[in-house]
Amino acid sequence: MTRAAIYKGDHTFVVEDVQPATPGPGDVSIEVAYCGICGTDMHVFHGNMDARVGHSRIIGHEMSGRIKAIGAGVDGFALGEPVVVRPLVHCGECPACKAGHSHICHRLKFLGLDRDGAMQGVWSVPAYTVHHLPEGISLKHAALIEPLAVACHDVRRARLQGDEHVLVIGGGPIGALIGILASKAAADVAVVEINPARRAKLAQFGLNAIDPAQTDVVKTFQDQWGGANVVFEVSGSDAGAALMTAVAATRGRLIMVGINTRKPPVDLFQFFWRELELFGARVYEPEDYERAIRLVADKAFDFDSFITDVVDLAQIQSAFTKMDQSPDAMKLMVRIGAAE
Amino acid sequence: MTRAAIYKGDHTFVVEDVQPATPGPGDVSIEVAYCGICGTDMHVFHGNMDARVGHSRIIGHEMSGRIKAIGAGVDGFALGEPVVVRPLVHCGECPACKAGHSHICHRLKFLGLDRDGAMQGVWSVPAYTVHHLPEGISLKHAALIEPLAVACHDVRRARLQGDEHVLVIGGGPIGALIGILASKAAADVAVVEINPARRAKLAQFGLNAIDPAQTDVVKTFQDQWGGANVVFEVSGSDAGAALMTAVAATRGRLIMVGINTRKPPVDLFQFFWRELELFGARVYEPEDYERAIRLVADKAFDFDSFITDVVDLAQIQSAFTKMDQSPDAMKLMVRIGAAE
Repeated sequence: MTRAAIYKGDHTFVVEDVQPATPGPGDVSIEVAYCGICGTDMHVFHGNMDARVGHSRIIGHEMSGRIKAIGAGVDGFALGEPVVVRPLVHCGECPACKAGHSHICHRLKFLGLDRDGAMQGVWSVPAYTVHHLPEGISLKHAALIEPLAVACHDVRRARLQGDEHVLVIGGGPIGALIGILASKAAADVAVVEINPARRAKLAQFGLNAIDPAQTDVVKTFQDQWGGANVVFEVSGSDAGAALMTAVAATRGRLIMVGINTRKPPVDLFQFFWRELELFGARVYEPEDYERAIRLVADKAFDFDSFITDVVDLAQIQSAFTKMDQSPDAMKLMVRIGAAE
Repeated sequence: MTRAAIYKGDHTFVVEDVQPATPGPGDVSIEVAYCGICGTDMHVFHGNMDARVGHSRIIGHEMSGRIKAIGAGVDGFALGEPVVVRPLVHCGECPACKAGHSHICHRLKFLGLDRDGAMQGVWSVPAYTVHHLPEGISLKHAALIEPLAVACHDVRRARLQGDEHVLVIGGGPIGALIGILASKAAADVAVVEINPARRAKLAQFGLNAIDPAQTDVVKTFQDQWGGANVVFEVSGSDAGAALMTAVAATRGRLIMVGINTRKPPVDLFQFFWRELELFGARVYEPEDYERAIRLVADKAFDFDSFITDVVDLAQIQSAFTKMDQSPDAMKLMVRIGAAE
């Protein structure tokens, strides 16, 4: 038997013994090592996604592990090799898939939400979702590859140039990762973030963390450089939607990363007047995963500082409760298997 | 002396005799042949732009004419040759100019609004704003080059592919020109327009003109092709802002052509979810003018049908009043000089 954390609705996870998954044809099973807690998982915890996930779902998708078993018809994997999963299952037939954008398939199934996820000892997934990791990589760091791939996708959508000035609106985990990656490609990057503890964390990563209560962000950017060439809107807030058009330079590129649950007022006139451009960015494509894997393998930045806590699967309930009360936290990692 | 139509505020134009302009250094003067009435001119007539244009402005910018005199230091022009003016005067020093986007200069002066325009017998302009026309071109048609260049710019921003499905929201003069141009580059084009007379006009140009009261535009596009690959939002309305995100295909490209005076609610979630892209488009660049000139010279479509009326400069007041009461009209042309 192996352990699994099962969401039961109403802010409740239980850890139960379950039969270890055996891979069907085309699948592999993975002995999960670590699984991070994502903002989406917090939405599940809050009951906001009950209609989608139900009340007996094993969640989790920011994971790392080792191949445990290989299903019929699957080639190219070795037992015990380290891997991560790109948790997207597409239909192959919808207009998005046919146009080559299977990551935003109209019938996309997200593993850990629409199907069971990684918060279990052994996880079975379609082999095509699995990426190989180089030996020697830290499996704890490797569980950051999924959110890092999100940031890689967002930054790739921005087509940054070396002389450009960048603003990231929102300095949570994804905003921070975007800021760190953008710093490698642009002239400079600022991150606007209201939480002082998060600003301190951003500064630790060498980012210019701005308190919008203290600094007139629009004036600063407009005076210094005629505006921000690229803006990542990660907050999903009405304030973020207002700031993105006000702070942008002529022909500025705005990347919509945040999830807006409302329809905020948007200054469409500025799109016309300054020929602004807005690009939506969602999840990742295989090349974003490969980029994120290289960054982790190369220890491109201080991944240990990014992980603010590690807990055992048995403590999953208290971990979610703690996360809920800790807006300062960056990434909380759940240890699923034996520590490596 | 020569005649000029001067905006005096309060829905009033007077036609007065004025001294013919003589070109200063770097300028040329043009004997104006025709000048179209633009939607922006209607805004002036309504008093909406008094703060910008004042109460003694000669308006007009959709023009054609012949070189009348050549100022000091100007080369490359011949007296009497047919020309049009790209009515943009840029500063050369702002961030937009420095980035190569002088058409959206931060201190852009628009001839016919910020300075005197073409509704006069002789108009003096900076030589760099003037485009040569081939001999034999119809000067009446050539006065359509300015709005046609707007449409060329809008369509160029869309980077249309031959297999794409296009929706234009709003079938006034600019929407119609965009529809006609897009038809030459895309698989098919529909134009949604509430005015039945305009729909009839659009149909005359071979366009699929949709009545949104009769047809569920979103369902039609989503069912047939998984949405519109490219949407031109030309209406500047809240309804247009709502339709553009709802009708777009995954990775659909939305071109913001209309002028939004309010900040409408925008479904930013759809930008994230379907990785939509939005591109602002304003006025034109020199290459858009050159493209528009070739289209007119080549008689690329039935320009005569596009011009719904021609009046003399002396009738300018009644022409504006009539335009105001004729939502069905496409382009009203004012004859300034001798008919050709």
